[in-house]
Amino acid sequence: MVDLSKTFIKDAKKLTDGTKVAIGGWAEHLIHKGKICFLTVRDSTGRIQVTGIKTKLPEELWEKLLALKNETIIRIEGLVKKNDKAPGGLEVIPEKLDILNPVFGPIPIDVTGRTPMDEGTIYAQRELTIRMPLNKAPLEVKSFVAHATREFFIKRGFTEIFTPLIVATATEGGASLFPIKYFEEDAYLAQSGQFYKQAAITAHEKVFGIIPSFRMEKSRTRKHVSEFWQIEVEAAFEDHISIMQVLDDMMVYVVNQTIKTAKEPLAVLGVKPKKLKGGFPRISFKDAKELCTSFELEVSVDMNDDFTTPEETALSNHFKTPFFITEWPTHTRGIYYRVNDDDPNISNSFDLVAPGGFAELCTGGQRVHEYDKMIEAIKKQGFGVDSYKWYLNLFKYGIPPHAGYGVGIERLTWWICGNHNVKQAIMFPRNVDILRP
Amino acid sequence: MVDLSKTFIKDAKKLTDGTKVAIGGWAEHLIHKGKICFLTVRDSTGRIQVTGIKTKLPEELWEKLLALKNETIIRIEGLVKKNDKAPGGLEVIPEKLDILNPVFGPIPIDVTGRTPMDEGTIYAQRELTIRMPLNKAPLEVKSFVAHATREFFIKRGFTEIFTPLIVATATEGGASLFPIKYFEEDAYLAQSGQFYKQAAITAHEKVFGIIPSFRMEKSRTRKHVSEFWQIEVEAAFEDHISIMQVLDDMMVYVVNQTIKTAKEPLAVLGVKPKKLKGGFPRISFKDAKELCTSFELEVSVDMNDDFTTPEETALSNHFKTPFFITEWPTHTRGIYYRVNDDDPNISNSFDLVAPGGFAELCTGGQRVHEYDKMIEAIKKQGFGVDSYKWYLNLFKYGIPPHAGYGVGIERLTWWICGNHNVKQAIMFPRNVDILRP
Repeated sequence: MVDLSKTFIKDAKKLTDGTKVAIGGWAEHLIHKGKICFLTVRDSTGRIQVTGIKTKLPEELWEKLLALKNETIIRIEGLVKKNDKAPGGLEVIPEKLDILNPVFGPIPIDVTGRTPMDEGTIYAQRELTIRMPLNKAPLEVKSFVAHATREFFIKRGFTEIFTPLIVATATEGGASLFPIKYFEEDAYLAQSGQFYKQAAITAHEKVFGIIPSFRMEKSRTRKHVSEFWQIEVEAAFEDHISIMQVLDDMMVYVVNQTIKTAKEPLAVLGVKPKKLKGGFPRISFKDAKELCTSFELEVSVDMNDDFTTPEETALSNHFKTPFFITEWPTHTRGIYYRVNDDDPNISNSFDLVAPGGFAELCTGGQRVHEYDKMIEAIKKQGFGVDSYKWYLNLFKYGIPPHAGYGVGIERLTWWICGNHNVKQAIMFPRNVDILRP
Repeated sequence: MVDLSKTFIKDAKKLTDGTKVAIGGWAEHLIHKGKICFLTVRDSTGRIQVTGIKTKLPEELWEKLLALKNETIIRIEGLVKKNDKAPGGLEVIPEKLDILNPVFGPIPIDVTGRTPMDEGTIYAQRELTIRMPLNKAPLEVKSFVAHATREFFIKRGFTEIFTPLIVATATEGGASLFPIKYFEEDAYLAQSGQFYKQAAITAHEKVFGIIPSFRMEKSRTRKHVSEFWQIEVEAAFEDHISIMQVLDDMMVYVVNQTIKTAKEPLAVLGVKPKKLKGGFPRISFKDAKELCTSFELEVSVDMNDDFTTPEETALSNHFKTPFFITEWPTHTRGIYYRVNDDDPNISNSFDLVAPGGFAELCTGGQRVHEYDKMIEAIKKQGFGVDSYKWYLNLFKYGIPPHAGYGVGIERLTWWICGNHNVKQAIMFPRNVDILRP
């Protein structure tokens, strides 16, 4: 059997001078100067220098080192040696080199990241570019974001749910639906877990999930992908005001916990996200629209229209922390949002927007819980009441007042990482141009 | 604003005699005997008796109580009172009753679970039957199973990954693929995250995810659904032997942790799963086949064929703990399994089977990592090498030796719950007959 045992490079770097060590990973780069060679070995935790000196090595080992092609999978046994001139102040003096898997030709990308790469190449060759530290780091941050999110909700007694992804009923209107043939029937990929998380609260009261959503987005922007995962939250006996506090608390926990747990990938990205204090500012839709008129922007013609992208960006730049925009006009929201009792033009809803020119992170609010209002809403949307019978049954047979929200985990990760594009937080993104790899 | 604040029933039950309390939930059942009435109120955490005595209540409150229809959403303020005759030794004496949402007609199922219900009804009316304690409990257990799983891997330094679900390349052959039109292209729903988790290890080395899988399963068995979530695990610098140990450790952690955290739903189900000790027995495929000949079964004609369902059940009944079946014949496994160096008829693979007549929980093993072998395997499967170019690039440009496995989280939950059917561990299951709700 081949010996695969090894010490992660980040741990090898903590060893004292003279310790015997086995490391394994990718032969990233070799520099050969006469009788000395420097090999950079990379694993998922970092890089280390292996220094070969011809006169001190068995000839066979020296030759094997020199013949190494970039990205070959190797395992090296040797001694850790302090060396102020080596990157990180440390090198490995090799004693044994095993080639665990060779390469077949030069890899078509510069893994070190020294060569600038256009966005097209990054995603066209994603199976190779994810191994580059700057591309890998946001995916690691996302792993910590997901874990912190779940910790937050499990501690609060929420039940994690898994909503179905093949569905017969649309939640958001038909334009962005992916149709699918399900045996003999017509079905769709779920646009969100909305209706099903509402069903779930009739059993568990407080639920969350990190769940895939599919939207046939034709836009080629830095915000749009057709497959993304949402932090879906729904809770019985809550309204839009109390659920905003849950979201406020969640953001504080998740961001601050991620700053702690994702130290290494955040350092790779060279970003230092600020700890959040919570109690985010709340501004009404109307006031936010008025604020927009004070910016040097072409303002919307109709003050009831959703924000334009320049307006959204300017608002986001105006604030220093995430902030809520509340009291959205009824017509801008999905059919499941509850209309305000005092003003039918306003829905009990909010967005949470990230500061610094970023985009909206979250949409949420109180939901309709009255049977008659729900029938009306479904008819108004042009959905057939018959197809939505199961959903209407929730309202007919006892659903508590409830509220909820959805946060795109990729957007949240993107913002924490200070990235340029949501796709950077997705291992294999999908959009109108990208189906492979 | 309507007051929605309340104490969960499980917490109300811990209050001392005479404490003021607000509870909220579903008016499950009302019994009226002359001048006294007993109302069972249910929330997601349990049930409590509300006792009304006509002579002691304002007339309006008494009338409101008597008029309550089953499953109405209510909020009751009152006093906790010890009463040995009440279920749980405790009742609530009401002082105020708010109807938060009425019902519109009698609910078509018996939520208490006293009326036997056939499987067809349970899933046809799933939006209503999930609120029944016996249907809700497995979904709660699943939430704890998922959380324990992620804790296990995060503690071990694994990165959580999210693999794409719309894909252009099949992993397991075409028969069970759901085709989908992706803008102008032909695509599929992912049968598993296999190829993408292999890509992920070239960045992160050790990865896991709980990820949806889609298979067009035409079978109507207690094991088959067309949408399920898998605990997907893949790790670089591991082989089939060392990854079996990871799985062994994972099972011990997840099952024992779930026994601790999911006490309440497990009690509702009336099951007491045994704590696991690990070091599960390992039996080779060949020996397991021979063991089958000792059972009173019709044996397979070809000793190299996969186990028949009766064989699998008999084997599962033979063992008292989960057990591994190792060294599967090469032809029974996917193209990505590595063939044993000493015997080309055997793959470096295993199944983990649950005891007590249950089914296989997990399939895993060492993967091919050699470029030439992978090209050969893809050709042999009848896949076009061009379509798999991105996948082949992994092997061409440096992938470490690696191993992994997939555990159906529904199957694992099903087994822990001692349920009859995998669908019981799915909120809204999908199979050949079920697309709604």
